[in-house]
Amino acid sequence: MRFLARRIENPRKRRCFVSVDNSCLFCRITSGELKATVVFEDEISLAFLDHRPLFPGHTLLIPKEHLETLTDLPSTLIGPFFENVQLLSRGIEAAMGAEGTLVAMNNRVSQSVPHFHVHIVPRRKKDGLKGFFWPRSKYGGEEEIEVVRQRIVSTLANLQKDMK
Amino acid sequence: MRFLARRIENPRKRRCFVSVDNSCLFCRITSGELKATVVFEDEISLAFLDHRPLFPGHTLLIPKEHLETLTDLPSTLIGPFFENVQLLSRGIEAAMGAEGTLVAMNNRVSQSVPHFHVHIVPRRKKDGLKGFFWPRSKYGGEEEIEVVRQRIVSTLANLQKDMK
Repeated sequence: MRFLARRIENPRKRRCFVSVDNSCLFCRITSGELKATVVFEDEISLAFLDHRPLFPGHTLLIPKEHLETLTDLPSTLIGPFFENVQLLSRGIEAAMGAEGTLVAMNNRVSQSVPHFHVHIVPRRKKDGLKGFFWPRSKYGGEEEIEVVRQRIVSTLANLQKDMK
Repeated sequence: MRFLARRIENPRKRRCFVSVDNSCLFCRITSGELKATVVFEDEISLAFLDHRPLFPGHTLLIPKEHLETLTDLPSTLIGPFFENVQLLSRGIEAAMGAEGTLVAMNNRVSQSVPHFHVHIVPRRKKDGLKGFFWPRSKYGGEEEIEVVRQRIVSTLANLQKDMK
């Protein structure tokens, strides 16, 4: 992969540089090389209609910087980026006369484009999008639950230690 | 609904008050009245295993404050809360030896408990969770796309105007 520093004009704040990947479909949308139906843009992010929507209004929000998954989003971007997710969730629901939204991120598995993107999908009751959280399973018993709990707790503790 | 101010002891920062709803299942988990398998907790949020997981390790992260949807999350909480989502996504993937994660929020529609919660689900290739983003549809044509685009853009502009 080739990364280039591209200058983004930011009229309100200082100029900034972001990494773009010229082989990445979404970076090519950000740069204007590929066409997309843009519904929102600010200094850090871009939102456009998914061309194969679950329902009309299904939107993808991406960071302009080439970041692959949620894990790669720097902490300085998390607040501003998810404020935009919130704005879009509210706005798309209202714009489409919907009753709710599904906001979802696939990290690596089921991620069709390896550039972090958040799906914001307008939802209505009985809209046919069942099966999202199915089939559910069950834990074998208390012992299995305890093994899983311990694994997650100790992994999180190590991650937090590394972050300090 | 009845809301109570409940004091949360925060050893690091000032003491804070949050609204809890005593009729809410997740508020009752936060208060300790109902049992859950907790894997993470900080001043603002709590994470516990979903008792009917898509896959073992499937976790729900909730704000301690009783907020119904993503829209209700105050801007001061968005950064810290989604930093925790990021930490959990990374940690659960590692802990469960997974290849990726699904991070998803159902706002109102398909939301089983009306207390905002983020699903963090460990994923593996060919894990059987197909159908998540199906069936996809198509827009009828350029005209329909343009109508949707204009609706979303104007709604977002109004929302942003109201926020100023």
